[in-house]
Amino acid sequence: MFENRMPRYEILSEEALGVLERGWRRIVTEIGVQFAKPEAVELFRRAGQRVEDDVVFCDPDFVLEQIALVPHEFEIRARNPQRTVHIGGDKMVFSGVYGPPFVLEEGRRRDATMSDYRRFCMLAQQFPELDSAGGVICEPNDAPLDSRHLDMVFALQTLTDKIYMGNVVSGTNARDTIAMSEILFGGREAIEATPVTISLINCNSPLRWDGRMLDAQFEYSAANQAVVLTPFLLMGAMSPVSIPATLAQQLAEALTGIALSQLVRPGSPVVLGSFLSNIDMQSGSPCFGTPESAIGLLCTGQIARHYGLPFRAGGGLTSSQSPDAQAGYESLMTLLPTFLAGTNFVMHAAGWLEGGLVSSYEKFIVDVELLRMLRHEFTPLEIDEESLAFGAHQEVGHGGHFLGAAHTMERFRTCFYRPLLSSAQNYERWKRDGGQDTAVRARAIYEKAFEEYEQPPLDDAVRLELEEYVTRRRRELGD
Amino acid sequence: MFENRMPRYEILSEEALGVLERGWRRIVTEIGVQFAKPEAVELFRRAGQRVEDDVVFCDPDFVLEQIALVPHEFEIRARNPQRTVHIGGDKMVFSGVYGPPFVLEEGRRRDATMSDYRRFCMLAQQFPELDSAGGVICEPNDAPLDSRHLDMVFALQTLTDKIYMGNVVSGTNARDTIAMSEILFGGREAIEATPVTISLINCNSPLRWDGRMLDAQFEYSAANQAVVLTPFLLMGAMSPVSIPATLAQQLAEALTGIALSQLVRPGSPVVLGSFLSNIDMQSGSPCFGTPESAIGLLCTGQIARHYGLPFRAGGGLTSSQSPDAQAGYESLMTLLPTFLAGTNFVMHAAGWLEGGLVSSYEKFIVDVELLRMLRHEFTPLEIDEESLAFGAHQEVGHGGHFLGAAHTMERFRTCFYRPLLSSAQNYERWKRDGGQDTAVRARAIYEKAFEEYEQPPLDDAVRLELEEYVTRRRRELGD
Repeated sequence: MFENRMPRYEILSEEALGVLERGWRRIVTEIGVQFAKPEAVELFRRAGQRVEDDVVFCDPDFVLEQIALVPHEFEIRARNPQRTVHIGGDKMVFSGVYGPPFVLEEGRRRDATMSDYRRFCMLAQQFPELDSAGGVICEPNDAPLDSRHLDMVFALQTLTDKIYMGNVVSGTNARDTIAMSEILFGGREAIEATPVTISLINCNSPLRWDGRMLDAQFEYSAANQAVVLTPFLLMGAMSPVSIPATLAQQLAEALTGIALSQLVRPGSPVVLGSFLSNIDMQSGSPCFGTPESAIGLLCTGQIARHYGLPFRAGGGLTSSQSPDAQAGYESLMTLLPTFLAGTNFVMHAAGWLEGGLVSSYEKFIVDVELLRMLRHEFTPLEIDEESLAFGAHQEVGHGGHFLGAAHTMERFRTCFYRPLLSSAQNYERWKRDGGQDTAVRARAIYEKAFEEYEQPPLDDAVRLELEEYVTRRRRELGD
Repeated sequence: MFENRMPRYEILSEEALGVLERGWRRIVTEIGVQFAKPEAVELFRRAGQRVEDDVVFCDPDFVLEQIALVPHEFEIRARNPQRTVHIGGDKMVFSGVYGPPFVLEEGRRRDATMSDYRRFCMLAQQFPELDSAGGVICEPNDAPLDSRHLDMVFALQTLTDKIYMGNVVSGTNARDTIAMSEILFGGREAIEATPVTISLINCNSPLRWDGRMLDAQFEYSAANQAVVLTPFLLMGAMSPVSIPATLAQQLAEALTGIALSQLVRPGSPVVLGSFLSNIDMQSGSPCFGTPESAIGLLCTGQIARHYGLPFRAGGGLTSSQSPDAQAGYESLMTLLPTFLAGTNFVMHAAGWLEGGLVSSYEKFIVDVELLRMLRHEFTPLEIDEESLAFGAHQEVGHGGHFLGAAHTMERFRTCFYRPLLSSAQNYERWKRDGGQDTAVRARAIYEKAFEEYEQPPLDDAVRLELEEYVTRRRRELGD
């Protein structure tokens, strides 16, 4: 696992944090948050909060009392114990793109299929830069809608041995994810002892938590599974055209959502989620990799630490329609701040393209390269007398070169970052080799990963039980 | 001018700074620095430093005494007073790519010409993101070698009204640059009162300052023109394969070079230069946009502040052979740390491609987009009660949208960064418009800049005098 021991880049003053605190306090007190699930409203009412229909008006101090119950750090168990992850502190956990209905492969954009879904699971398994198999890595449109979550969870569980994200389309889907996790991990007691899934609960911003998402949240929190409570904020559409106003709204939404999980099960693991960008005010299109999203991300990290909460943000986000220069710079424009902020859980860390509508194989490899570079960059330097290599200077002197120096010869294999995808070939050689740009070179890398892929071993009895569960439930769901 | 009022990202402990200080002190004391110009050696000798042939062994405290003479901040005057720049403090000055023998335009790579040189001057003039017209924006291979510097300086002076960089190929070329600057700015006294040029003096690392560069440095420093003393460090070739060792060497070279300028003329304006990356240890190719170069850059900024020196570093550096995804992410991998470090003078800020062998028109526009985004990103947020836009929340409530809110309507034109190059078009529309990737879209942007270009006005008598100077000197140089 990657531990980010570099300094955090913090840009908010204490005074600014105070303004934002007053902001969310006023929102939850005066405007309230809508919870479209009677059981949720009832939990808040019983805890002494004022409710009007499905709108909950919270005492901010009550919200903070609930937040105080949240574990600062926790583990998510993988079926391969070496792949168990730690959420919180200096640790960073990376998970692939989530949600796209389309895929892009070798320049062709098409509907995503279950075969794509499985292939992306295999890529997540093959690259150690990803700690998680993912969740809705793409939406497999060729699988029946009611039961595809069974195939997806089965793929995550069997094609990889990493942690995975739970399905949140409905309470039913969440229950199926939990039941299958019980099979894989040895029963309810085992998964309640240490969470084995992490699931994305999005807010229907502004200030509304929808019923189906809440149904899933109730199931996961009751089973002590981790949930990421994420305001979905494209400024200009789901929040005001002001970063401070959006941060205050993000807190009002996330903190009340987190409080709800604590009402469902005190001490259950949660993550403060952030998905914050802006729309293009001319066209209404969502924009990613923007300066605003980078600023929002840096602020979110600092705010999360202020409230003692692990947080999710960032990833390799871009609006670009192809894995081109814009895709490169926009992704890094979010991913570098993701590291600067010390983000604990990073969704969309690989494969995101076209504003999240597309899972791209080529872009997956671009993002893996970025993750590798940033892991290297955010590893502190060791600076001591030995690192000064004075002997090398004595050996080389003035105007010479260090290529053959003893200090160099001892270290040349490991001294620098070695790229996976980037090319520094001289022009003539690059041209002779086909003059391939980055996207084209990426293809050979994922093809090789598929060739080298080996399915991680799984106990036959467990696999059979999972298969039987999928078959039975598919029948029950009428597919 | 851009003022970076965001926090600096500093990664070195006081202890680490101490180790690096001991490192350069030991190098200048025990190994010494070679100065391949007798007058330079003589200046050090007369100042009480030990010399052996052309190697100067410095007392580190003597070096620090010279460094203490350096102005912390200074101005460089442009012929258009609104374009005069300030070097040092929180200010950042951006200058285009420097040095490439080739250009890339619409996918074709070819020898650079004087026509290319003039067109890049025009682009530098057209984009306010660049504060400087540049220097050797490309090497005009169709102009006679001995006199092309005259044409280049004339182009910088007449096609733009921004500051420009002086020619450093020889003392003669430096004298011509200074003479032409005297004509443009009203005589020697005027340019000595406030510098009007800034020039790049590279070290032939390790630990050797070459004669021709020193000849140019002597001319510029004597005329009180700014010089950027820059160790040229590709780790593994010109320095050890260790970042701390390279930083210590960078200091030994830069500080002795700066001390020399102070011996030539105490108080003359200098900039601590850094050009620090690494080679690929397999092929020997130089690599840019690497994690190592980003770390080196962040350290350099902190070190420069420690010694109270304005510094140069960073830019939009990449090894990529084309303006593709790698060019996008590698450039930002250097350019974002350039801002995090608060770099005072940024060379190669636009147009750099293929390890600096190519000036690319498309890449110039990519970099301008990055500069625009980063200027926006590194402008501090104003966080106060008004920015919380509570009225917008009251207006929109739960589950609605902010597109038509009064707060939005009042601000929608200016609330977010508006891209120059990046596209967030939906796929169908993008495809209908030709499915152009970033590099292709960049072409329309620079073509438009050429169409809109207007040569900045210049007094006829001054222009005539410059033309006469160029004609006379060209004849004298035998071209």
